[in-house]
Formats: sequence, C-alpha cells, structure tokens
Amino acid sequence: MADDKALTTREADFSAWYNEIVQRAELADYSPVRGSMIIRPYGYGIWENMQRALDDMFKATGHQNAYFPLFIPLSFITREAEHVEGFAKEMALVTHTRLIKDADGTLVPDPASKLDEPLVVRPTSETIIYDAFSRWVQSYRDLPLLINQWANVVRWEMRTRMFLRTSEFLWQEGHTAHATEAEAEEEATRMLGVYREFQDDWLALGVITGVKSPAEKFPGADRTYSLEALMQDNKALQCGTSHMLGQNFARQFDLKFQAESGQEEYAWNTSWGVSTRMVGGVVMTHGDDSGLVLPPRVAPIQVVIVPIYRKDEERTLVLEKAEFVANALRAERVRVHIDARDSMKPGPKYYEWERKGVPMRIEIGPRDVAAQKVMTVMRTEWTGGDRKEAMDETAAITVIPKRLEDYQRFLLKRSIERREAASHRGIDDYDAMRTIIEGDGGFVYSGWCGSEDCERKVKDELKATIRVLPSEEFRSPDQPQQCVVCGGASQAEAVWARAY
Amino acid sequence: MADDKALTTREADFSAWYNEIVQRAELADYSPVRGSMIIRPYGYGIWENMQRALDDMFKATGHQNAYFPLFIPLSFITREAEHVEGFAKEMALVTHTRLIKDADGTLVPDPASKLDEPLVVRPTSETIIYDAFSRWVQSYRDLPLLINQWANVVRWEMRTRMFLRTSEFLWQEGHTAHATEAEAEEEATRMLGVYREFQDDWLALGVITGVKSPAEKFPGADRTYSLEALMQDNKALQCGTSHMLGQNFARQFDLKFQAESGQEEYAWNTSWGVSTRMVGGVVMTHGDDSGLVLPPRVAPIQVVIVPIYRKDEERTLVLEKAEFVANALRAERVRVHIDARDSMKPGPKYYEWERKGVPMRIEIGPRDVAAQKVMTVMRTEWTGGDRKEAMDETAAITVIPKRLEDYQRFLLKRSIERREAASHRGIDDYDAMRTIIEGDGGFVYSGWCGSEDCERKVKDELKATIRVLPSEEFRSPDQPQQCVVCGGASQAEAVWARAY
Repeated sequence: MADDKALTTREADFSAWYNEIVQRAELADYSPVRGSMIIRPYGYGIWENMQRALDDMFKATGHQNAYFPLFIPLSFITREAEHVEGFAKEMALVTHTRLIKDADGTLVPDPASKLDEPLVVRPTSETIIYDAFSRWVQSYRDLPLLINQWANVVRWEMRTRMFLRTSEFLWQEGHTAHATEAEAEEEATRMLGVYREFQDDWLALGVITGVKSPAEKFPGADRTYSLEALMQDNKALQCGTSHMLGQNFARQFDLKFQAESGQEEYAWNTSWGVSTRMVGGVVMTHGDDSGLVLPPRVAPIQVVIVPIYRKDEERTLVLEKAEFVANALRAERVRVHIDARDSMKPGPKYYEWERKGVPMRIEIGPRDVAAQKVMTVMRTEWTGGDRKEAMDETAAITVIPKRLEDYQRFLLKRSIERREAASHRGIDDYDAMRTIIEGDGGFVYSGWCGSEDCERKVKDELKATIRVLPSEEFRSPDQPQQCVVCGGASQAEAVWARAY
Repeated sequence: MADDKALTTREADFSAWYNEIVQRAELADYSPVRGSMIIRPYGYGIWENMQRALDDMFKATGHQNAYFPLFIPLSFITREAEHVEGFAKEMALVTHTRLIKDADGTLVPDPASKLDEPLVVRPTSETIIYDAFSRWVQSYRDLPLLINQWANVVRWEMRTRMFLRTSEFLWQEGHTAHATEAEAEEEATRMLGVYREFQDDWLALGVITGVKSPAEKFPGADRTYSLEALMQDNKALQCGTSHMLGQNFARQFDLKFQAESGQEEYAWNTSWGVSTRMVGGVVMTHGDDSGLVLPPRVAPIQVVIVPIYRKDEERTLVLEKAEFVANALRAERVRVHIDARDSMKPGPKYYEWERKGVPMRIEIGPRDVAAQKVMTVMRTEWTGGDRKEAMDETAAITVIPKRLEDYQRFLLKRSIERREAASHRGIDDYDAMRTIIEGDGGFVYSGWCGSEDCERKVKDELKATIRVLPSEEFRSPDQPQQCVVCGGASQAEAVWARAY
C-alpha cells in the first residue's frame, strides 16, 4: 500500500496529477473493461456520504425512492426524436441472452437466443419512467408524482477519465410529473437550489448556476438548468443538471390526467441528476501537490489519530489515550480512525493520510499523555488558525467538531475566491476572450446574441462552450450590451469556458 | 388508487393471491421488458429499511462497501469451469455500442460498433472482484479483505415472478479474501449468522439454516450455506446464501499473497448475498386474505393515523390532535403517517392501509379528542393483547413503541410455529415422503445416503429438492439412520421440500 514516490505537481501536469491522486488515494482503480472503473472503499465512502446527505434533502422536499429496470426497449428510446438523437451514439445494446459452445468449444452468444428487439442499457430513464407514470396517474389527485432513483447508467464513451467520464457511472435521477407548467418549473428550479446547497455546503465546490443555451440542453428538454464549478486548472466541470421537460415526454408516452376541470391534459415533467462525477470535482477543486483535500462533511475519516511511541510501555499508554480521545470524539459524531499499524513509522503515516485528504490529524506521544495534551494538525494551511495547534485534551473534544465546521467553510470560501479570481467579466472583444481561453482559462462573462452560429464558432475555434446563462445572483453588475462574437445586440450574458 | 375488489384468497389460489398483493399494495409493477419489474416507492421503502439494517450489520462486522463494473468480459466468466457452466444459460450479452439508421431509416445496432469480445451483464461478480483483489493484495498484511457491494444483477430467466425470480434484481454481494482456510470458513458461517439474525429479528421469517448438498451448491464454491423459510403454501424459499469458495477463484485469478512465512500462497475466498427476493418472502410468510402484513422494523409506515370527522370544526380539532400524537411518536422514532385525504371515508382508508400491511392504525374522532383517548388497532389478531385497544393519549406515546416490538416478536413466533407445524421429522419411508410432498407440503426431515442419484430421483418424481443439511440447532433429536430414498446408510439428515 505504501508508495512513497512523490506525486506529479498540478503545475507540471494537472491531468497526470489527477489520475495519480485518484489511484494513490485509493479512490478508484481501472477495470478490465475499457472505460469502466472500480470505485474502491475509500472513494465509495465519499459517495456514500454524498448519497446520504442528498437522499435526506430529497425526502425533505417530498420525494420518494423507487427502482426502474436497467434495460429499456429500443422502441422506447426512439420515441422522442431529440432524445434518441442525443444518445444513439453511446448506447450499450443487449442482443443475446445465452452462451453456447461453437465448433471449437469456445463459448459464444447463442444465435438462437437473439432478442427480437435489442435492449438498451439505460443511459437515462425518462422513457421507461414516464411510461410507468402513464399507468399510475389518472387524475390531478395523483399529482404531483415525485420520484427519485439511485442507479447505475451506461453511456459508451470513447475518451474516458475516472469519475469524470466513464462508460458506467452511478447517479441519482429524479423524475416528477405535475399538473401545471408553473409547478414543473418551480420543481426544476427547486432541485437546482437543492443541488446548489449540497455542492456548496457539503462539497465546498463554489458552483455558479444558470440555464443552458438551447444547443447545450438535455436532448428532449425544454430547458436545462446547470451547476458549474471551476477546477484548479481553470476548466469548468458541469456538476449537475435539472431539466424542465415540458410536455415532450408526456405526449410520447401518453402521460395524461383528468384535470380538476374534468378535461384531459398532458402532465408536465422534470428530471434532475447528479453523479459520482462530483467525486472528481472534489479532487480537482480542493486537492494539492500532497494529495487529496476532503471537505469534512463528506470525508470518510474526519480525524486520524497517529500514536507516537518507541517502547512497548509507551505504546500501551499512548494507544489507551488514543482510544479515549477517539471515543469521546465519536460521541460528538466525528468520524475517527486510529492508525495503530506497528509496521509503519509516524512520518509515512502522516504522508499517507495527507495523500488521502483527511481533514485533521491528531498526534499523541508519551509527553502529550503526561501533559494531558494532544497535537492537532489541519490538512492544509488555513485562515481559521494555525495549521498545528496543541490542545488541552478535554477542550479538544468540544473544539474539534467546531474546527471541522470552520474548515469546511474555509474550503468553500477558498473555492469561491479562486473561482472569482479566474472569472473575467465584461469581456466584449473576441480577441480578448481568445487570449483568456487559450491562456490561463477561467470563466469568461460576455454578451451573447443568442445565435447558435456564434456559439459554434467559439466551440470550433476556441474549444470553449457556453457553460450557462447565469442566474441573477451570478450576473455581472454591468450587463453586456453586445455579443462578444458577432458584435450584435446581446440577448443575455453568457459564461464561456473550456470544460471537462 | 382505491380498488375495492376483494383479493383472491390464499386458499383459492396462493399464486394469484401473491401477484395481487404485490400489485395492489403497490409494491411493484410489471415492466415493458419481459421478466423485469418496477419496484414502486412503497416496495422500495421496505427494501431501503432492509438495506439500512443489513449495511449497519456488515459494517459492524468490519466490511466496507465498494462498487465494481456492471460489465464483465466474457473471458473472465469462462475462466472458472463450474462457474460458467452454472450461469451460461441465463446471461444478458452486450454486443454493440451504437445505433445507426438502416436503409428504411429504422435505428438498429451499428455493425461497425460490434465489440471484439461480448460483455456479460453481471449475474454475480466473483470473477471481476477477485481479479481486482489480485492487484490489491500483496502480503498477508493486506488480509483479510472484507468488501460488500450493493448492486443490480441480471440472470435471464424464462419463468419469472415478481420479487422471487426476475431477470434483473437488486442485491448485495459480499466478497472476502483470507490468509487461511479456517478464517474463510469462519467468515462464511459468520455471515450466515448475520443473515439469520436479520431474517428472524427484522423480517420475522423464522428461517432454518444449513449446508447445501453438492448438487445444489453455488457454481464454483466448495460449500454453500443457505437460509430457507417456509411460505404459507408450504413451499420453501431460499432467502440467502453464504459460500465458502476455497481457493477456486484465487487460482483462476492469480490472487496470491506472501504469507508470514515468506511463502507465496493462494488466498481463500467467501461470497454471500441476499436480494429483493426477501420482499417476496415477507409477503408470502406474513400476508393474509386482507393483504400485506409487515413486520414493524421494515414497514415504511409503522403507524397510520386515520382522523374521523364530519364537520369542518371537527376536522380542525381532530387533525390537530393527530399532528400532536404523530409528532410525539416520531420523537420516539416511530414512522407515522396521517391519512388526511378528504376525498375518502375512514372505512375505505382502513381497508387500504390493511392491504398495505401497516402494523398499527390509530383512529381519532371528536369524542376521542374530548376524552383524551385514541383507539389503536393492530393489523392482525395477535397474542399480545386485544386487536383493538383504547388508550389514554399520553400513555399511548410510551406504550406504542413497545407494542410494535411485541408485535414484531409475535410475527416471528407465529412463523416459527407454522414452520414447525409443517415440518415432518423422522420420515424414513419414500411413500410417506411422497404423500407429504404431493399433499400439504412442508419440510420433510429424513436420512440421506449422500448420493446424487437419490437426490435426482426425488427431484424428477416429486419435484422436491434437498433444501439444506440442517445446522445442528435444527437437526432432529433422533438422527435418522437410513436414506429415505434407497434405504442405504444415512450420511446426514436432509430437509426436503418443493421450493420457489
């Protein structure tokens, strides 16, 4: 497990740095199937903490979990024209259901087991879910229907990267049906707000929110809301989306209800999702050249205690104290691990837990025991105090949970400051935009005339896209008057960036 | 939603009764893909409660969650000979990864996207997990490795039944690696014990445990331990299994480690799993002719409050009291729902919640408010008291949580009594066994000579199998001396039954 080679620095090669952290912090591993990954216990522990927090938030807003089939009939996927157009190129297709030995004795798909209609491994579940809703909804009394599913989905990707883009990933997908357009719109923006709260308060990402341009919206949606974070290499990461689907799927899947007026009407749908991609966002937002930096709220281990001893008597004494402190902190709901391995010295242990991003380390040696003190060390320098701090052992139990919450807030503040330092507002000149995008990168705020031609030009020439037309809170005080590309009248401020 | 047609009785048609309950209690629904199902929120709520309890038990025994890919290379599955033999006939195979329009404009799998090697949608994950373990384990210090995964799996089944046998189902699969045979054996039996505790204390199934005969063990295992429950139609349901895999997979996937002695050795593996099938087991163990009967510990709603009123003033008064009682119970961690629908009278509400198996109903009317009383009604007659009981409103808050625990224990006791009443011990005559199996059914305890021929004869002629060679605690006081089939010397007591 111990692997002492220094990490590549972010400066030297951000992408190599990322891949190394993911593997050396034991978040994930490559799998023998191209484009898929294994989420190792430490990475999965982060995901479990994310799931629990989100699940509570979904339930608090009236949603219930359910589970829909992995396999979707091809005829379902093809029903909504834009939808299939968007997904056709990246679908895993099940065509056979049995193996048989060929003439050489090799096991091959049995031709006799060929399915009449291929099955699509779900890339997303709008079609199969709204088909079910059409059987469950009769009257306005059955609405709203507020469902969420935790599931794996598959999108066959050519260029993959762990957590950010893999053929299979884990996510949640919310699917709702409403009696009116206004209620659906309210739901789509409510869930955008839930994601924003989660990604800022739990993941400390410092996201901006807004609406996607028509060219970038979800295939089959009327409107897509998105959350975008800025990574340390100044590339954007889309961290979640919430779609106002209008009546597009309802029409194709005959999702009708009897309104209070007695009239039959099509329901209005929303869908929204976030995925294991957020783990990659956490790595690229907070990590440093020593490894992962985890926000305490999602860290599998919030405090690691490293006992320091030479002789056996010291070992007993120090471990006893470590257990005492650990149990007292656990009673305060702090996730504590004692690293009691005898096969490793304290130094290498420090490096290992730093690489794994544990927010706080506690060192306890024989002299600390005698003085009834502990030495606490935060994972990074921070503005909330000294990185290293000796604490009275009893005071530590009450101080540490507060320190962790302060550190959580510090990480968010740091992300937002970095994002804003790399946000360029009021850019009204295409060459200036080019200089930024091709230089240090970041978010470019500019006017946009609303035409897809201008969007395409930027994509082709600068490999940048409109991340969002920002929500009010993120708009520049001076709203731009002209399109940064063609100089025409601006319809809306746009945030451009290169993205993962 | 309301559907007043009476349920088919268990007596009239047990199988039709089961299917009706699953649908009318809104546990699950058919899906457009043959053999798969939709788990509706109420059914999924039961599964979530099961998951949470099991997950806590797994973690308390030192296991960590992780996630491995859905797709397994065909070459992996074929590596362990018995393993592929067991699963080859029921595999969903992914062969293409893209759609393309054919000459008619119909979307079909793009021949150019055909995979060199088909991918198997995991039927179980031994192969891909032990391949990963082989990279993670170097030394005895890395052992034991104790991993669990919550996942969906696919086994292409020809005859399906909701929850009991569907092409896709949800489960957990534990996978562990150990340095010695004894440690692996200890793990396999430990997890059998965890399942037993869960299935008895949480699901009140009243299972028996034991080891499978070689013919019935998991393909690739040295030994399979199993938990078997007896349904109300006296057919057995296998509720979970724990496998001692020996070194079979370790040899095929090169899972070696350096032992303390310095020698390289193959690791010893175990795997163990339970699935959404348990939901079906709960239905068929506890349900009655009015519908589902849920054990409180896994019931999504433990107490439903039905307010009774005619006039508006009464409605306000009664609902206020209902809220007060609900909140007081919630503070005691009771899951309470208030059914405040104005569109329905109390009677139909009672039927609906009985059909859904809610353990306790509380009725509150204006006279109850005045008298500071509530009327509690258990879902079934029981031995812990009267089914209907008027309670003083303050006393109710402390009494009800205790009642629910008593009712939980009552359900287990009832299951065990029913199972034992349908268990026929000391059967040493084949005709007597035939009369039981072809008559009322149940568990037949008899001697078995250990030969597969005798087992096959019973399977062919009576459609019954050896469910387990029972663990010591379930063995008959007088151990049988001769095989019930051939009359030869008995090697072990066996429990025979027809099964789902």
